[in-house]
Amino acid sequence: MTTPITQHIVRSLTDGDLPRVWSLLVTVFGDLAQEKGRKISGVALGHMAEAIGLKPEAVRVAMHRLRKDGWIESHKEGRERHHCLTDWGLAQCVHASPRIYGTPAQNARVWLHVYERGSAPATGHDIVLNTTSRLSADPGDPAGAFVTEINPDTALPDWMRNKVCPADVVQTARIFANRLTDCAAFLKDHPDLGPLDVAVLRILIVHGWRRIVLKTPDLPDYVFPKDWDGPTCRARVAALLAQYPRVDTQMIAKPT
Amino acid sequence: MTTPITQHIVRSLTDGDLPRVWSLLVTVFGDLAQEKGRKISGVALGHMAEAIGLKPEAVRVAMHRLRKDGWIESHKEGRERHHCLTDWGLAQCVHASPRIYGTPAQNARVWLHVYERGSAPATGHDIVLNTTSRLSADPGDPAGAFVTEINPDTALPDWMRNKVCPADVVQTARIFANRLTDCAAFLKDHPDLGPLDVAVLRILIVHGWRRIVLKTPDLPDYVFPKDWDGPTCRARVAALLAQYPRVDTQMIAKPT
Repeated sequence: MTTPITQHIVRSLTDGDLPRVWSLLVTVFGDLAQEKGRKISGVALGHMAEAIGLKPEAVRVAMHRLRKDGWIESHKEGRERHHCLTDWGLAQCVHASPRIYGTPAQNARVWLHVYERGSAPATGHDIVLNTTSRLSADPGDPAGAFVTEINPDTALPDWMRNKVCPADVVQTARIFANRLTDCAAFLKDHPDLGPLDVAVLRILIVHGWRRIVLKTPDLPDYVFPKDWDGPTCRARVAALLAQYPRVDTQMIAKPT
Repeated sequence: MTTPITQHIVRSLTDGDLPRVWSLLVTVFGDLAQEKGRKISGVALGHMAEAIGLKPEAVRVAMHRLRKDGWIESHKEGRERHHCLTDWGLAQCVHASPRIYGTPAQNARVWLHVYERGSAPATGHDIVLNTTSRLSADPGDPAGAFVTEINPDTALPDWMRNKVCPADVVQTARIFANRLTDCAAFLKDHPDLGPLDVAVLRILIVHGWRRIVLKTPDLPDYVFPKDWDGPTCRARVAALLAQYPRVDTQMIAKPT
């Protein structure tokens, strides 16, 4: 079922960097089956995996581990095998979804906390700046710490921005932003995608973005490094996912 | 020449705590002779020192040291000895005057600087909060440090306020504020002061306030500890000094 179009989509979004199978399969179920009882057939999964370039044996091993780790349940119906997220796996995907699919809340805010001496352990998305100061999405306790809100107009030194997002994630985002541009340009000239094309496109977009955004704190973009392409990635991801809505994976299982 | 009124003024403003002679004499010249060529006769100085309760021998020793340190010049004119500030001594007094006599500028501002690691040595009135942060009257360099202005509405933790002004200075200010109130109440009932009374009154007011204000950084009152009575002292000092202008010390030298 893999067409030259599928191949081009895969190449434009991965440039040959094959994603980790286990992690990619979480993306597959998280994007295409994030709904109680929504299942993906073994046949459809096999087509998608093959299109992306994953070896059947690697998929088999990863699925085994996903079942063992409690992410996936598999059932046989007649001669066909079906897979779906467990309740726990579903809860994990639902938890991560706002960050992957959402735009940052308009009212996302961030505060600087300065303590006299070494402070309590950082929690949640706190960014530890040094032993006595941190950035936090939490307004904190002004009795214990000096607290000041950081707004989009606040000048921030580079060392502070660089703590918010490590250089390798900034670089990954830059590469991914370019891949999304290349892919969008290709799609403009190839408007007619089959169900497998769309599924693969969504999976690789969501997977690429998920691996970036979940490595960053849930803080406003304006505290990120100046060369952070996160907002560009997020906008392009949102545009492409809106343009190519989820497909019913049963369409992939059927011969065209 | 010392009258019960002088004695009461001295008691209300010192409560028996005799100031260091050397330092008090700097105040005497700073308040009464802060003008090029303005001199104070040995006789007038003796009357003032006696009224305050200083021993003539202690005054003689302190004047000797003030001459040696370059603050004071002494000249004989006929049978009288006169003293005045040297150019250097005058410059010192002129430098300190805005803080002693002035109200804090309406536009006094203060910034928090947060550095990634141990920062450059503090300068001027910077208050070192810990190894990576400080308060400064200088807006600093936002490329090197995170800088945020602290305004009157900013909530500040007590540990930060306490760094701005040590507890003993806060306590001295509280005591001095009370002494000023007592003294003002007494003066209300005793409106007719002689030149020596006024000179002694001014000297002890300026000296008491100078010993407080010059131990504090030149930062807005709103970053000081909550129980800081500096603004109260400053207002009472200003009111009394305005009510009792400088006297010509020649009036003190003459017998009444």
